[in-house]
Amino acid sequence: MNSDYSGKRVLVTGGLGFIGLNLSRRLLELGASVTVLDNFMPPGVSEMHADFLDHIRIAIADIRDADKVERVIRDQEIIFNLAGKSGAAASNKTPLNDLDINCRGQLTILEACRTFNPGVSIVFPSSRLVYGKPQYLPVDEKHPLAPESIYAAHKMAVENYHFIYGKLYGLKATVLRISNPYGPFQAGEGRAYGIANSFIQAAVSGRPIILFGDGSQRRDYLYIDDLVDAFLLAAAQPAARGRIYNIGDGQGKSLLELAELAVAEAGQGKIVRGAWPEEYRAIETGDYLSDITLARHELGWSPSTDIREGIKRTVLSYR
Amino acid sequence: MNSDYSGKRVLVTGGLGFIGLNLSRRLLELGASVTVLDNFMPPGVSEMHADFLDHIRIAIADIRDADKVERVIRDQEIIFNLAGKSGAAASNKTPLNDLDINCRGQLTILEACRTFNPGVSIVFPSSRLVYGKPQYLPVDEKHPLAPESIYAAHKMAVENYHFIYGKLYGLKATVLRISNPYGPFQAGEGRAYGIANSFIQAAVSGRPIILFGDGSQRRDYLYIDDLVDAFLLAAAQPAARGRIYNIGDGQGKSLLELAELAVAEAGQGKIVRGAWPEEYRAIETGDYLSDITLARHELGWSPSTDIREGIKRTVLSYR
Repeated sequence: MNSDYSGKRVLVTGGLGFIGLNLSRRLLELGASVTVLDNFMPPGVSEMHADFLDHIRIAIADIRDADKVERVIRDQEIIFNLAGKSGAAASNKTPLNDLDINCRGQLTILEACRTFNPGVSIVFPSSRLVYGKPQYLPVDEKHPLAPESIYAAHKMAVENYHFIYGKLYGLKATVLRISNPYGPFQAGEGRAYGIANSFIQAAVSGRPIILFGDGSQRRDYLYIDDLVDAFLLAAAQPAARGRIYNIGDGQGKSLLELAELAVAEAGQGKIVRGAWPEEYRAIETGDYLSDITLARHELGWSPSTDIREGIKRTVLSYR
Repeated sequence: MNSDYSGKRVLVTGGLGFIGLNLSRRLLELGASVTVLDNFMPPGVSEMHADFLDHIRIAIADIRDADKVERVIRDQEIIFNLAGKSGAAASNKTPLNDLDINCRGQLTILEACRTFNPGVSIVFPSSRLVYGKPQYLPVDEKHPLAPESIYAAHKMAVENYHFIYGKLYGLKATVLRISNPYGPFQAGEGRAYGIANSFIQAAVSGRPIILFGDGSQRRDYLYIDDLVDAFLLAAAQPAARGRIYNIGDGQGKSLLELAELAVAEAGQGKIVRGAWPEEYRAIETGDYLSDITLARHELGWSPSTDIREGIKRTVLSYR
């Protein structure tokens, strides 16, 4: 995999976010010529990542700005297309905003590809949320799609955009349906990304971890380095064109177990029970566990980071 | 069914289009209090349908205009939510325009419902195009979704919007995935809606019917009166809430057979072969046939118009 990226011109949209920073740093280590497109420099990132930022190109632009997007997209060989707004509960509160950023923004990127770079390889991170409440576990890629949030409905739409541009214009698109990633390099964003990091961050900073309900629902937490591996393999593997892969740890722990691990590794913190906020209850999907057989077989990918080890490293990064 | 609509306050968005006019006229016959929302009065409609237009309320407004939409949506008991821009090939040429009308417009309608009428019954017409190229025939509702156009990707998104608003706010939503409707009352639109009407219109007006390729691909043509029946049953049937139904004739004829029937019933016209325009070839789905078992069982619906009879009536309407 290393040799696949040496000297390659690679664009990471949303490259200053949690996943984007981790992916971009790895790409630089592998010798890629990295461009990052993001709509702003999150507070703290320029200090924490100065070593890295000095060696890449940075374009600060909104993905809805076609002119700027077009200039960045020309000549790229690979695009990791991470830009967008996350947050399922938020999307249900402000659906038109989610539409504008996540659908109009993505169509702007793809229209730029169609005009200036139609054959580029592109990997789009979708979400396990497209499945809604699982009808069976573990969830494979054939599981029916039943999004419970506008965010997830738009992830589905953008998955389809990528494949439509693939069929019509030759875009080499792969979609990853990602479970719950966690890991270092999130501090710059101001708030923690996802449930696992928010628990770890709370424990490290001595704030209580609030569990809604009994915390018995299982989730599939994926360490960021393993997720980065999946991105790199997906873009490098010709067999992945036009394909969708579930990317998760494939294991699964309850939210309560996760909280207990966070407290144990942080050496402090406490767990408290809280009432379900309505906007979270409405989109709660219950247990989720990824079936990652397809990614194992077709991408040669498998996660290798034990959750204790992953939490330990994340705790260190927050210190 | 008749009694279900007598005195009911019913809104038809897109009510001056082909399906909308047919549906609205029937609703008026059934004694409903009909409001039609459309973005313009198509040329010819005010003359051809004066008898009908005198007895309904008409709101000329863009569905992206939240203030106007809100005023129309309050107090409605049933909404047939037909507004939008059709055309799969067109959507691939101008995807951002399709997004703006079909997704932003629909979210504007649903946001208005959420605020002013969250428990309304609503029927949304989706399309057989969400299935893409069939993997098997006839196509049932469990068939995988693989849209080949931005139009179809957005139909999927809007299907999901309806169900999400159902779960979150109590909207009583039903989705119909419609095959290829045809029938009278299209002249007002200036151009024919769909393949069957364009063939019939060509034959009646003495223009050649142009078949791309050999015309052997089968399609499922549904007479408009049968489609109107399906809409009426879907909104009246409590068991239809949160459900998706394929609505087609369930029979199927090749494009060539359709063209021959059009010529025969028109008593004139000729069929010529043409080269595939690229934008049509790109989205050609091959044979399609609806499995309508679910609609038969749950809605008690079945199409009753033989295609010869349907074409005959359509020919008369174009004369």
